[in-house]
Amino acid sequence: VLSGKEFFVFDLVLEQIQFADQKQEFNKRPTKIGRRSLSRSISQSSTDSYGSDSSDDETSPRDKQQKNSKGNGDFCIKNIKQADFGRREIEIAEQEMPALMALRKRAQGEKPLAGAKVVGCTHITAQTAVLMETLTALGAQCRWAACNIYSTQNEVAAALAEGGFSVFAWKGESEDDFWWCIDRCVNLEGWQPNMILDDGGDLTHWIYKKYPNMFKKIKGIVEESVTGVHRLYQLSKAGKLCVPAMNVNDSVTKQKFDNLYCCRESILDGLKRTTDVMFGGKQVVVCGYGEVGKGCCAALKAMGSIVYVTEIDPICALQACMDGFRLVKLNEVIRQVDIVITCTGNKNVVVREYLDRMKNGCIVCNMGHSNTEIDVASLRTPELTWERVRSQVDHVIWPDGKRIVLLAEGRLLNLSCSTVPTFVLSITATTQALALIELYNAPEGRYKQDVYLLPKKMDEYVASLHLPTFDAHLTELSDEQAKYLGLNKNGPFKPNYYR
Amino acid sequence: VLSGKEFFVFDLVLEQIQFADQKQEFNKRPTKIGRRSLSRSISQSSTDSYGSDSSDDETSPRDKQQKNSKGNGDFCIKNIKQADFGRREIEIAEQEMPALMALRKRAQGEKPLAGAKVVGCTHITAQTAVLMETLTALGAQCRWAACNIYSTQNEVAAALAEGGFSVFAWKGESEDDFWWCIDRCVNLEGWQPNMILDDGGDLTHWIYKKYPNMFKKIKGIVEESVTGVHRLYQLSKAGKLCVPAMNVNDSVTKQKFDNLYCCRESILDGLKRTTDVMFGGKQVVVCGYGEVGKGCCAALKAMGSIVYVTEIDPICALQACMDGFRLVKLNEVIRQVDIVITCTGNKNVVVREYLDRMKNGCIVCNMGHSNTEIDVASLRTPELTWERVRSQVDHVIWPDGKRIVLLAEGRLLNLSCSTVPTFVLSITATTQALALIELYNAPEGRYKQDVYLLPKKMDEYVASLHLPTFDAHLTELSDEQAKYLGLNKNGPFKPNYYR
Amino acid sequence: VLSGKEFFVFDLVLEQIQFADQKQEFNKRPTKIGRRSLSRSISQSSTDSYGSDSSDDETSPRDKQQKNSKGNGDFCIKNIKQADFGRREIEIAEQEMPALMALRKRAQGEKPLAGAKVVGCTHITAQTAVLMETLTALGAQCRWAACNIYSTQNEVAAALAEGGFSVFAWKGESEDDFWWCIDRCVNLEGWQPNMILDDGGDLTHWIYKKYPNMFKKIKGIVEESVTGVHRLYQLSKAGKLCVPAMNVNDSVTKQKFDNLYCCRESILDGLKRTTDVMFGGKQVVVCGYGEVGKGCCAALKAMGSIVYVTEIDPICALQACMDGFRLVKLNEVIRQVDIVITCTGNKNVVVREYLDRMKNGCIVCNMGHSNTEIDVASLRTPELTWERVRSQVDHVIWPDGKRIVLLAEGRLLNLSCSTVPTFVLSITATTQALALIELYNAPEGRYKQDVYLLPKKMDEYVASLHLPTFDAHLTELSDEQAKYLGLNKNGPFKPNYYR
Amino acid sequence: VLSGKEFFVFDLVLEQIQFADQKQEFNKRPTKIGRRSLSRSISQSSTDSYGSDSSDDETSPRDKQQKNSKGNGDFCIKNIKQADFGRREIEIAEQEMPALMALRKRAQGEKPLAGAKVVGCTHITAQTAVLMETLTALGAQCRWAACNIYSTQNEVAAALAEGGFSVFAWKGESEDDFWWCIDRCVNLEGWQPNMILDDGGDLTHWIYKKYPNMFKKIKGIVEESVTGVHRLYQLSKAGKLCVPAMNVNDSVTKQKFDNLYCCRESILDGLKRTTDVMFGGKQVVVCGYGEVGKGCCAALKAMGSIVYVTEIDPICALQACMDGFRLVKLNEVIRQVDIVITCTGNKNVVVREYLDRMKNGCIVCNMGHSNTEIDVASLRTPELTWERVRSQVDHVIWPDGKRIVLLAEGRLLNLSCSTVPTFVLSITATTQALALIELYNAPEGRYKQDVYLLPKKMDEYVASLHLPTFDAHLTELSDEQAKYLGLNKNGPFKPNYYR
Repeated sequence: VLSGKEFFVFDLVLEQIQFADQKQEFNKRPTKIGRRSLSRSISQSSTDSYGSDSSDDETSPRDKQQKNSKGNGDFCIKNIKQADFGRREIEIAEQEMPALMALRKRAQGEKPLAGAKVVGCTHITAQTAVLMETLTALGAQCRWAACNIYSTQNEVAAALAEGGFSVFAWKGESEDDFWWCIDRCVNLEGWQPNMILDDGGDLTHWIYKKYPNMFKKIKGIVEESVTGVHRLYQLSKAGKLCVPAMNVNDSVTKQKFDNLYCCRESILDGLKRTTDVMFGGKQVVVCGYGEVGKGCCAALKAMGSIVYVTEIDPICALQACMDGFRLVKLNEVIRQVDIVITCTGNKNVVVREYLDRMKNGCIVCNMGHSNTEIDVASLRTPELTWERVRSQVDHVIWPDGKRIVLLAEGRLLNLSCSTVPTFVLSITATTQALALIELYNAPEGRYKQDVYLLPKKMDEYVASLHLPTFDAHLTELSDEQAKYLGLNKNGPFKPNYYR
Repeated sequence: VLSGKEFFVFDLVLEQIQFADQKQEFNKRPTKIGRRSLSRSISQSSTDSYGSDSSDDETSPRDKQQKNSKGNGDFCIKNIKQADFGRREIEIAEQEMPALMALRKRAQGEKPLAGAKVVGCTHITAQTAVLMETLTALGAQCRWAACNIYSTQNEVAAALAEGGFSVFAWKGESEDDFWWCIDRCVNLEGWQPNMILDDGGDLTHWIYKKYPNMFKKIKGIVEESVTGVHRLYQLSKAGKLCVPAMNVNDSVTKQKFDNLYCCRESILDGLKRTTDVMFGGKQVVVCGYGEVGKGCCAALKAMGSIVYVTEIDPICALQACMDGFRLVKLNEVIRQVDIVITCTGNKNVVVREYLDRMKNGCIVCNMGHSNTEIDVASLRTPELTWERVRSQVDHVIWPDGKRIVLLAEGRLLNLSCSTVPTFVLSITATTQALALIELYNAPEGRYKQDVYLLPKKMDEYVASLHLPTFDAHLTELSDEQAKYLGLNKNGPFKPNYYR
Repeated sequence: VLSGKEFFVFDLVLEQIQFADQKQEFNKRPTKIGRRSLSRSISQSSTDSYGSDSSDDETSPRDKQQKNSKGNGDFCIKNIKQADFGRREIEIAEQEMPALMALRKRAQGEKPLAGAKVVGCTHITAQTAVLMETLTALGAQCRWAACNIYSTQNEVAAALAEGGFSVFAWKGESEDDFWWCIDRCVNLEGWQPNMILDDGGDLTHWIYKKYPNMFKKIKGIVEESVTGVHRLYQLSKAGKLCVPAMNVNDSVTKQKFDNLYCCRESILDGLKRTTDVMFGGKQVVVCGYGEVGKGCCAALKAMGSIVYVTEIDPICALQACMDGFRLVKLNEVIRQVDIVITCTGNKNVVVREYLDRMKNGCIVCNMGHSNTEIDVASLRTPELTWERVRSQVDHVIWPDGKRIVLLAEGRLLNLSCSTVPTFVLSITATTQALALIELYNAPEGRYKQDVYLLPKKMDEYVASLHLPTFDAHLTELSDEQAKYLGLNKNGPFKPNYYR
Repeated sequence: VLSGKEFFVFDLVLEQIQFADQKQEFNKRPTKIGRRSLSRSISQSSTDSYGSDSSDDETSPRDKQQKNSKGNGDFCIKNIKQADFGRREIEIAEQEMPALMALRKRAQGEKPLAGAKVVGCTHITAQTAVLMETLTALGAQCRWAACNIYSTQNEVAAALAEGGFSVFAWKGESEDDFWWCIDRCVNLEGWQPNMILDDGGDLTHWIYKKYPNMFKKIKGIVEESVTGVHRLYQLSKAGKLCVPAMNVNDSVTKQKFDNLYCCRESILDGLKRTTDVMFGGKQVVVCGYGEVGKGCCAALKAMGSIVYVTEIDPICALQACMDGFRLVKLNEVIRQVDIVITCTGNKNVVVREYLDRMKNGCIVCNMGHSNTEIDVASLRTPELTWERVRSQVDHVIWPDGKRIVLLAEGRLLNLSCSTVPTFVLSITATTQALALIELYNAPEGRYKQDVYLLPKKMDEYVASLHLPTFDAHLTELSDEQAKYLGLNKNGPFKPNYYR
């Protein structure tokens, strides 16, 4: 296990690189633009699932008297009657989350989370439900709120409430509702959490502001999002982080799946669902050749597109060359391309000047980390006409009739117009569960008041739990081989920095 | 241009091979299961386009008095008020059908269809509208009916009617409506068609049955669908075909685009929209390695699936091997695969025995030519439970809880759950227009009472009209090179059998 | 089986397209530049095989007294002592030619070539030896000469002579030797051939000129090369072909393997062996997108090259677009590319003007059908310096120091600088054997004095004999399925024109 | 620039992981089996370059009186007369090493190595010559010996000697010659080196043993090889490293090119040159899915092979799954595969038990880091017959006649049977030059007596110097964007651990 000092060095680098504009953002409401976390049922293109609540009951859940079939009322959701439908959704999700199911099986003997009291604040989806029920099987008590006002699957929340969970969440919360739910989750007479599972940092933030004393009992924070991790590093830097925190966002497995493998599929899916464009023969420019860009480029090349790449980093640029992509500046190809995709993590990559020069019908979308990459604001001028042609699809029309097809108003295409496979969510959920176990059971002194990456060995363990899905058979080192390599037979097999 | 005799030989082969079960089918209502022809707006997964008619007016269009803004009433559609919205759809389609627009431009001088009176029976979509307006620009008069009771875009029909076309079609016709529309299209006092453009053979069939004398004035039939072409070959074989007919279904360009290139994209699209499955690492078996199978395999391999192929033809089988796919019998892999895709054109490829042995969660779908490939009927037994989880997606549940995910009830996935890019439709429409021109202008004696393929040179011309879309620059032969190769500088460049 | 009439129609098309410059070429010595036929051991880059004869015996084989160990002297080769080494080469080749070995096994009962007297004129290689010994096992008597003065593997010829074959061939024949060997092969007192197996047409030509009466006994000609087939079509057209001939060059299986699959590998191999160039990131232009071009482009794209394509045929051009290649005219990219590859079958595709504009270090090579594609003659001018840097590699140096790297002096790269896998040769040899069987056993009247393609069913049979190599398992049609498709369960499965 | 502390932490991890068997190896003669470093002309398959010395002069260079045309005799090489030919080789190499040429250009003003006295011990090839002449242009004085007794290009050594360099090297040195040359290089009256450039650690080792006082003047060591870096880490760990050392082996750019990109091409090249095997349809197992394995798998998949992967690390295993490869244990597929490739870095991966079960004709080769992966020793038993069929190719024959095709006796295939592109060598040479500059110019205290990685920024600089080769255009950050990302506009753009 790595020392705190090592992480500290790491942190400094990370912060310097990735987290600018600190002061402005710290006190703002979080933008919550993580790469993802929406499950299948939330996708706007997949809304025809049967059984979703059309009961347009206008009463606020906060104003209703709520009870489940056992008489328990310590929750606040939309409609408990949807519990059966939600249960089926959870069961379907279970089938695609074999790693959590495997953890449950192992927990039949020992309960590594016995005594753990977890407060959680994440998207409330079928996959989250599988996680929560796994934590319970591992011995924990859970109370949960939503980390996003739109993303709750009401039927899943109902199933959880019916199953005895204290859930406070519904789809379409107001901002006031949002904080009210978090507070209800945390603030219970006679109950004190000792673990935090957060996605975005709002729960952590709330406790810091309102119940700072609670941290005395808390053994650790597990945080998934870029935004939340950023805040933790800031706290740590400012000397204000008073418990250990685990950054699960940067584990290798999660990163590869969230970025390279997931985006390789979602770029095609997102473009097809919104525009039905044919990829063959299209000229595409992909801005940025990190993991996301690599995934997008590989997929489009395979479908017969001609792909150009822009980069600022010469190492990634050289990789793009060796992978068979022409490395250009945006202005060299902007007039000729059919599709522009941003995945830089930067701001103002596609500015008005470029938009003015695009050809008629050019599709513009963003796969990067936030909605800053395309300067959408610059298109809100009087001479341009906006025409919504589908949900998530706008035609922006120039005075000469030229139309640009703007997807998701420049927000994340894969979040808005595609779905995240359960398999990817399974990797995250398993990582979160293991991080909770690690922090909860770590011997005194292993973790200090700092931000840590998941130990390599646990990262490898998450991966190994997902191999059976592919009927994949891992080779074991012989004693002699392990000795030759200087490795433990059970890993870790690579140094911590290995990607 | 090839001689009729040559085609006759060709026909015999074709019939022997592709068209079995003749007697049974000839008198049946056509199944209309062409590979495709649905445009974007009809796709069941893309139904959220704004402006579609929600006016649930229950009066049958046949019972309404209809007039466009110029007082013309020779049409029958759903709602003339939708004309503006339909016009915009047509304008958008025009941008992606540059070949037809190029034909219009060339028609400014000469009118190759001057005097032509075309009756048409096809899907009524924005793309068809672009075709119809092109035919008019080339000098033709057009009357049109729908070839499918569900596929009409009402707003497009409205725009056509407003533009002066005699259109008889709406979404949701009854079977009686269907034939009524065709009859209205054909049977007009003082007007006799001299060209037929058909998709499925129903229009041709109707004229044969009701107005056989009309064929005296008819110079030719252009038919697009597999089914319709089949019928024409039967008529020809039976000596009953009394005018020349052009089989545009088997032109090289159309075939490659409809099958290889289109399916390469639609297999991914169809699977994602229905199941959100992650392709990476999945084991897939593709039954059949013709053009459709080649497209499916290439796409899935590129997305990281492990693909197995079954084949009956050793030549295609050897191609599968050389392309890197394990050639297996279905029973060798049926227990282990995650996805089963049929594209054989055969029947009972996936039978109950195989369905019984599939693993839990296995996805089953069909990309072949009809709904016969998966023996869906065998799943309609009492011990199995069907559960519809989304439109086009059924879970079939075995007594032990095993679920098979059946897509589109075994009908064509790409027809039901995906869309056909306008570009592909553009190739078909252009081929249809050129076939009309060729038949209408051919000198006496070039075409006899037989079925013909589009002359190679015209096939090449269709292709050349679509190259500007890709900013593709064709090389021209020098005189010396043409002489060396024994070719005309303007083509045809390959023998007729070249694929 | 198809009728002669059908083939005749086919022939006319073929001739019109592919065979120009007829008069000039007919009386010339054939250029013998078939796509291939050199086996492993002949490749100039693989000359280090142990055991090759270094015995620089200068006596002409024609002047030596020759006898094998059994006292038989009806042959003329370099050195009978090399027989053992040649036998081992043959045994190794047998392992990679399972189809011929399978034919031998089946011949244990019946001898389909019993009574056949075959004269052959092909490259004399280990693979040919496997073919000859298979023909013998099938009941035939064989006499053989070489079709190329350089390509004989002396040790293989020795093994054949030792095994009792009448072989007349050695490496390094003079032109006079060449015809002398053919004559010895044909002209034997008391022996008259009844089948001809030719590669290039020289044997056929010789018999026509010298022994026209021999054709009275000859039941058919099997011809493999483009050149030889061309001559046969000319004879047929001129009404001078007096026996049936089988064109095995154009069978589907052979074409796909010789062109698409073989070139996909040999383009990489040929470039590496000659130049050690790194493919990643290189800009390459491929002239011609037929099967050879498709193979080259696919391979280079996979290795990370950026590939441009030129085409004259709009259909192939559109395919190039859909496969993800920019379609350009040569002059648009000639200044920027690192590698130029011709595969058009045309002449003067790369002319001096283009060579003048290439950048320093540009590699130029030809994968097409002959040495006409690059205008090498235009480089033989005083101001340019030629420098041979390796065998098959010349630097052509401009006055300003610019160097062009010209491979194989513009001859076929894959013939000169790469090797043809035994597996590909196996397909050809099996096709030849089956063609001999078909012609020899065909009932009176099936074949007339014309040129025929191998029946589709036999083409499929060749493919099926090669599937076991890949442990590939073919699916069989059920009776019901065969009936549904209107097919015989044993094939043919596709119409004759299917590619 | 990162602090020493950070590197120290890093070092510990590295050592623990990669360098086992320390004690045994430390006192042994180094095996010198780095991944590579042989240039084109040394490859055993490319030996037909014209002009190579056939003058089989048997006198030892040590016994000859040597002088160049200016009368200088401070060198010891094979034959000064080959200087002209060597000069041309150097000129050709210069064209493919634009980065070094760019460094020379920049050095026209300042001389960052003015005063540097570099002793070097590397392969003596044309590429090394370009490096040496660049160092001189940057202001350094150089003395050089060979790091391998076979790898010297005599003609290049001659050109260097003629150009005034003190070179001590020839092809075919004895072990005694080897150390004599190193000593001559170091031990010169009145001259003391202040920089060491080593490849394998022998030069460093020699100075440590013989001239430890020399280290007082030495400002740093630049080491390229795995072996040499390993030794340096050992010295450092033992507290015996008395100067800073730069590990250039582990820079990102070098790693990616040496492993992923280079092996992607050399696996195909090495297999073709030795066996002429056709890749299409072949079943291949690749042991190990690190960078080398990824390169091998990608190439073979693209060529139509069916590829299986074995792995011990679950993270790499999961990547293999997502990339479309079946993850197996070796014993599951060993009977069926046609080719076995090791790239694990481990020992005894392919043991006799597996070799016994392989099928006839199976090809076995190693792309990993040394000759330990295949247990070749186990094949040296009386019942097996070895037959050398080509250089680098052995048939090992079982009593039942089964043959295994063993390549390069289990040594590195890409070192033995393929070549390393100059472009890859250029990256290494540039990295070495920059490392020398950095160490030589670093302010007091930046580097301690430890082993360092090249600063990220320099790694990026190496990459940027190679982009012009691909006509690749890097995008520059705007001030605003740099501020947003918290980056310097000139880099470094990624944290140090980024791969």
